[in-house]
Amino acid sequence: MDEQTGPRDRIVNAAAALFLARSYTGVGIAEICAAADVRKGTLYHFFSSKAEVARAVLDRHAEAFTRQFERAECEARSEGGQIRAVVGAVARVQSGIESRFGRVMGCPLGNLAGELATTEDGIREHLARIFDSWEEHLARACRRAAVSGELRPGVDPDRMARALLAQIEGGILLAKARNQSAREIVEGLDELLDLYLVKEAA
Amino acid sequence: MDEQTGPRDRIVNAAAALFLARSYTGVGIAEICAAADVRKGTLYHFFSSKAEVARAVLDRHAEAFTRQFERAECEARSEGGQIRAVVGAVARVQSGIESRFGRVMGCPLGNLAGELATTEDGIREHLARIFDSWEEHLARACRRAAVSGELRPGVDPDRMARALLAQIEGGILLAKARNQSAREIVEGLDELLDLYLVKEAA
Repeated sequence: MDEQTGPRDRIVNAAAALFLARSYTGVGIAEICAAADVRKGTLYHFFSSKAEVARAVLDRHAEAFTRQFERAECEARSEGGQIRAVVGAVARVQSGIESRFGRVMGCPLGNLAGELATTEDGIREHLARIFDSWEEHLARACRRAAVSGELRPGVDPDRMARALLAQIEGGILLAKARNQSAREIVEGLDELLDLYLVKEAA
Repeated sequence: MDEQTGPRDRIVNAAAALFLARSYTGVGIAEICAAADVRKGTLYHFFSSKAEVARAVLDRHAEAFTRQFERAECEARSEGGQIRAVVGAVARVQSGIESRFGRVMGCPLGNLAGELATTEDGIREHLARIFDSWEEHLARACRRAAVSGELRPGVDPDRMARALLAQIEGGILLAKARNQSAREIVEGLDELLDLYLVKEAA
């Protein structure tokens, strides 16, 4: 625990790790407080409920993924093949989780979507907005790839973005169920991209 | 509740509905017993633990999906375009859930994989075996499609099956997060199939 980190950040970090390691339902407020080294009153000073903690956790993950995505895009601009940036971003996020927890733990957002989307509508709406923004981010990359002639004829960039996001979430979920490595998730995504992209010059 | 149904089946049916409506962690043994109209001793006569109930629930779902898949395959054999059978099966399962619960609830197996794969290894292994058998089922359909010349040149049927299963699970998870309809899941799958299949004659 970084002693320089303020109590709100410690709560969000602790909750993020506990939700990812187990589940939302299986983790209580007292346990989050203990892991964050704060009193219950401190948590309730910043958050009105566990659901509000979960929304802050989702925002933290969304920001982290967006940073990885933008970093991968920057690298891709100088190397060509910009659309493969998404694979690089997923690889980094999943490898980071694998290093920290010793195994693939699923997508932090996908896990909470599967667990809570039908019972916690406030969390579901928050998740839907983040998924929509990721899909739009992907769609912009796909549209740029279309303009630069990297997509096969007839491929619709927006539909491609929707399929890529589903492939990312489904691939991560199946890797979690099969206890596979982050590398296997990325290989599956790479193969799907091959379907959409014009073959690169050897 | 069908009064002809025996207590073991009633327990499995009740647990399946409760897990799908909420989660595994959020549902207790007492609640399953109440919904199944059995005493606790009766549940423990058939099952040693909630995890064993969950494995029986998974088997029930796996059998139901396999029946839908085989029915769709039979119809496809007489109509051509056999590989689209998978879309028909997913459509039927998801529409059935939507009719019963009034909305998309996610894949019963995907939900439990997301929630439990890192904390309940016995359930995870059970899930992995079912996903493997579905993927093999899909792969056989893809290989038949390859033999009958329906796949685009260069498409590997086994990798196609892996991508289709990821697309099914990811598409269902995102539809749950976005509160979309079963129809939208099927449209996404249809679009992905278009990438793999030779264009059908108009």
